[in-house]
Amino acid sequence: MKTRDFKSVVNKYDVVFFDAYGVLKNYNGLIPGIEGTIRYMLENDIDFYVLTNDASRSPDELAASYQVLGIKEITADKVISSGMLAREYLRYKVKKGTVTYLGTSKSAHYIETLGLDIVSIRETDLDDLEDLSAIVLLDDEGFDWKRDVNKLLNLLRRKNVPVIVANTDYSYPVTDEEVAIAIGGLSDMIEMIIGKRFIKFGKPDSQMFMFAYERILASRKLSKDKILMVGDTLKTDILGGNKFGIDTALVLSGNTLPEQAGFLVRSTGIIPNYVCEDAVISSRASKR
Amino acid sequence: MKTRDFKSVVNKYDVVFFDAYGVLKNYNGLIPGIEGTIRYMLENDIDFYVLTNDASRSPDELAASYQVLGIKEITADKVISSGMLAREYLRYKVKKGTVTYLGTSKSAHYIETLGLDIVSIRETDLDDLEDLSAIVLLDDEGFDWKRDVNKLLNLLRRKNVPVIVANTDYSYPVTDEEVAIAIGGLSDMIEMIIGKRFIKFGKPDSQMFMFAYERILASRKLSKDKILMVGDTLKTDILGGNKFGIDTALVLSGNTLPEQAGFLVRSTGIIPNYVCEDAVISSRASKR
Amino acid sequence: MKTRDFKSVVNKYDVVFFDAYGVLKNYNGLIPGIEGTIRYMLENDIDFYVLTNDASRSPDELAASYQVLGIKEITADKVISSGMLAREYLRYKVKKGTVTYLGTSKSAHYIETLGLDIVSIRETDLDDLEDLSAIVLLDDEGFDWKRDVNKLLNLLRRKNVPVIVANTDYSYPVTDEEVAIAIGGLSDMIEMIIGKRFIKFGKPDSQMFMFAYERILASRKLSKDKILMVGDTLKTDILGGNKFGIDTALVLSGNTLPEQAGFLVRSTGIIPNYVCEDAVISSRASKR
Amino acid sequence: MKTRDFKSVVNKYDVVFFDAYGVLKNYNGLIPGIEGTIRYMLENDIDFYVLTNDASRSPDELAASYQVLGIKEITADKVISSGMLAREYLRYKVKKGTVTYLGTSKSAHYIETLGLDIVSIRETDLDDLEDLSAIVLLDDEGFDWKRDVNKLLNLLRRKNVPVIVANTDYSYPVTDEEVAIAIGGLSDMIEMIIGKRFIKFGKPDSQMFMFAYERILASRKLSKDKILMVGDTLKTDILGGNKFGIDTALVLSGNTLPEQAGFLVRSTGIIPNYVCEDAVISSRASKR
Repeated sequence: MKTRDFKSVVNKYDVVFFDAYGVLKNYNGLIPGIEGTIRYMLENDIDFYVLTNDASRSPDELAASYQVLGIKEITADKVISSGMLAREYLRYKVKKGTVTYLGTSKSAHYIETLGLDIVSIRETDLDDLEDLSAIVLLDDEGFDWKRDVNKLLNLLRRKNVPVIVANTDYSYPVTDEEVAIAIGGLSDMIEMIIGKRFIKFGKPDSQMFMFAYERILASRKLSKDKILMVGDTLKTDILGGNKFGIDTALVLSGNTLPEQAGFLVRSTGIIPNYVCEDAVISSRASKR
Repeated sequence: MKTRDFKSVVNKYDVVFFDAYGVLKNYNGLIPGIEGTIRYMLENDIDFYVLTNDASRSPDELAASYQVLGIKEITADKVISSGMLAREYLRYKVKKGTVTYLGTSKSAHYIETLGLDIVSIRETDLDDLEDLSAIVLLDDEGFDWKRDVNKLLNLLRRKNVPVIVANTDYSYPVTDEEVAIAIGGLSDMIEMIIGKRFIKFGKPDSQMFMFAYERILASRKLSKDKILMVGDTLKTDILGGNKFGIDTALVLSGNTLPEQAGFLVRSTGIIPNYVCEDAVISSRASKR
Repeated sequence: MKTRDFKSVVNKYDVVFFDAYGVLKNYNGLIPGIEGTIRYMLENDIDFYVLTNDASRSPDELAASYQVLGIKEITADKVISSGMLAREYLRYKVKKGTVTYLGTSKSAHYIETLGLDIVSIRETDLDDLEDLSAIVLLDDEGFDWKRDVNKLLNLLRRKNVPVIVANTDYSYPVTDEEVAIAIGGLSDMIEMIIGKRFIKFGKPDSQMFMFAYERILASRKLSKDKILMVGDTLKTDILGGNKFGIDTALVLSGNTLPEQAGFLVRSTGIIPNYVCEDAVISSRASKR
Repeated sequence: MKTRDFKSVVNKYDVVFFDAYGVLKNYNGLIPGIEGTIRYMLENDIDFYVLTNDASRSPDELAASYQVLGIKEITADKVISSGMLAREYLRYKVKKGTVTYLGTSKSAHYIETLGLDIVSIRETDLDDLEDLSAIVLLDDEGFDWKRDVNKLLNLLRRKNVPVIVANTDYSYPVTDEEVAIAIGGLSDMIEMIIGKRFIKFGKPDSQMFMFAYERILASRKLSKDKILMVGDTLKTDILGGNKFGIDTALVLSGNTLPEQAGFLVRSTGIIPNYVCEDAVISSRASKR
């Protein structure tokens, strides 16, 4: 598949939405050279945000993970995570009572400070569900899968409360070669078994893009024409960006292998405006 | 299932989003007494919009269909249809070339005046697809199902262009007893056979709610807390409203039968804030 | 993908099950050289059957279509079609009443001579369904898609009778370049819209393989070890053969393109015992 | 829903296939009075088999579980489990190498004595997969869900081998009120995440019915007309029995609640020949 130079693409836009994993970083740390991209954008007044299907860590922690790697420009206000959308849902729709969660206590930060009682699924008493007003699935860690997923299933058979899923991804990379099942995969299994509809947040759903767009609009006017979504996954980043009405660039530094890109675009019908090898803008002449 | 009086519910909100079919009207015309609701809202400064999965007619025509029945207050600017979202998509993402459509010529009004060449699937020449930039599925009428759906399938095998679906509903009522398959049903069949992902607009997707909300925000500030979605279908109106973060009222005057409402809420896990017999506000004391 | 010579493969088996389209014939007639395969099998006492997802024509007509092309050895008793399984279902489960069908009158031959009243969907009176005992979906031709599929949908809302689908394929080739939607595609759309479960016959389902195997067992003993399924489609022929417990050979003369075969086997996890370019056994030394 | 007396139903058949859970026993032991049914069948020369989606225990152990409860007539040769079908698959299709399994060591009995090397997923070395020829999912117990399901996912990314699922059920009852996720639920999650097709055994699939029917035919002739399938679940027992071409009776002593039976039959379109309160035949006059 013919690729475009990322620099020539990015120059046409005022704001760029970056996916995190496979675009800015990978299992090994930063994608080599990606600091150059951030520097180039700052020098050329191109604003950016990181849109990530992640509810395992807060925006502060997510931003800190870039800062320790040397990119100070990615601050918490630049990060939009699917966990923040789950939090927004609770803010508007669940105004009192107890919320049970699946995930680490770190992931539970998303739902603190809302004035709700927060309790892990482990500590939830199935015989005392009167105050329960919602369940939030945040992370695949922090609980015993067999015991606690079964407990959740039985809880849902006893009490009909909304279930909010804070990350729709099925899996995530843990090393160069290995992946792990994400909370989105567990959540779809539970939904399928119980036959109920959960409320799910994350790309490709439009709400994440809308949330980022509203953050921009709070400080200035900007047409969707001037925003580019950059991602490594057709079914989340590119499909979501396309549907939201913004231009999209697929990079081949993550999930989508260079030799499969053309076939995948044709077979899925998910068509990015551009395909780039990666999102790296080097100061040197040619990087490979 | 215990129901609430619609008047007592609606008083808590500044704006109401109404689904059209099963809430305001049915196969027979207006839901008896619904004029009273509109009058009550005007008298009490409660604003309203009609959110409808429909791309068969323009907002002007949809509004006119209420006006001839005596509700003059439903004007075109009060109507948000899924066809308008498909039109927005084309405006941002398809800036040139030819667009092929399935639907009546009336439904094609949605995609006119965008500066694109518009051609029905019937008149599309499969041997001259160079200029083709998108396909829009608008309505289940206006074409020969066998000939033209097969033609579309073969077109998609020859050229990889985005397919936009302007109404996600599977079926719609045509009389008291009969339904017809909507373009959303045909579209899911084609998507399943070709294995590609289409871009689909309509409730429960958030974009329709966002579109209506942005229209409100253009003229004033309003918290989502002050909006109520009223619908007769759990899987579109209520699920979509809940996910968008607004309150929801299920009415039993359409798709959801009173004797099944409780079972359906429990089995789907889609939980409205209120259940009302209908959305009627009568001036007389009590109507039943 | 490394391929094996079909002759070296077939020598290990006593019986071969052939898929029809893409293996024995294509849009253009017989696969060139396939007569040699049939001759070779006869000479070497390897028995064979044709297993085809087809209910548009009777076994007699299907056999005749080979005979006019010069292969006299494919007689009606060698042909197992999915239409025959639908017929078996009716024989055991629907012992009286009227059966409504979608398809050509030719396809209706499958359900004649069972002592049931047969009526096309077009002639079915929705106000007189008392005697209706089943619906059979046979072919994508012979009816008006829009009118009659909608009629079927409304019939199913009025009366709860079993729906039998006599071919699960989504599409079939009509020329070198074009495909058409098969009754299996229409049927899945109707099933999805109405939310009911239909009774479906065709590969990869085991019943078709069992039907063929029972025909063999009626005249002699044969272990499944000695049967080979030869097909051009992973998801029907190979998956079905594997599950039934017989060996499988994928040929690349139909649906599965040589350059995609390796990728498809890896990504679907449907693993044939052998991959062959085609099922041709030439009398000449080397055929290409 | 009007129900029939089980005795009047069973008298029409020569052989009865019983589902186990919800028909013969429940969380509490035997369904009260079911001994009378077995005695009645013996006295009246009605043969029977137990068809169960279960691979956690061998037929011997399953039979023993009835015998300790006082029904000596249910011997191992009367029990057909989905685990036996998985075993048959391996016998015919996997003739050498190592088989990795998920489940207890008790469930692994199904795949012993086939001459294959058997190793649990826990003990499998991902860096030494050369001899691996298949994976079998047997039971939801006996392994660490998080660690071992993730390990299986990564194994499948490294080596493309068939995955056999020995029980398609999503969940099973553990007490009067609680259920647990079965291996079929976990298996569908893994299949969805990895995107591969697994080989699955269990009702409603025809192979289980065929396996039982072949066991009968080994000793005598019997038309399918003379067999009745009795089950408590529409989507497995009744759908599977119907499709196999035998008569079906739904009992309301398990999964399907009496007050929902009518609605479920109408909404799923899965229609049993009979509905009975339970499968109990009492010697006393009337049992309720």
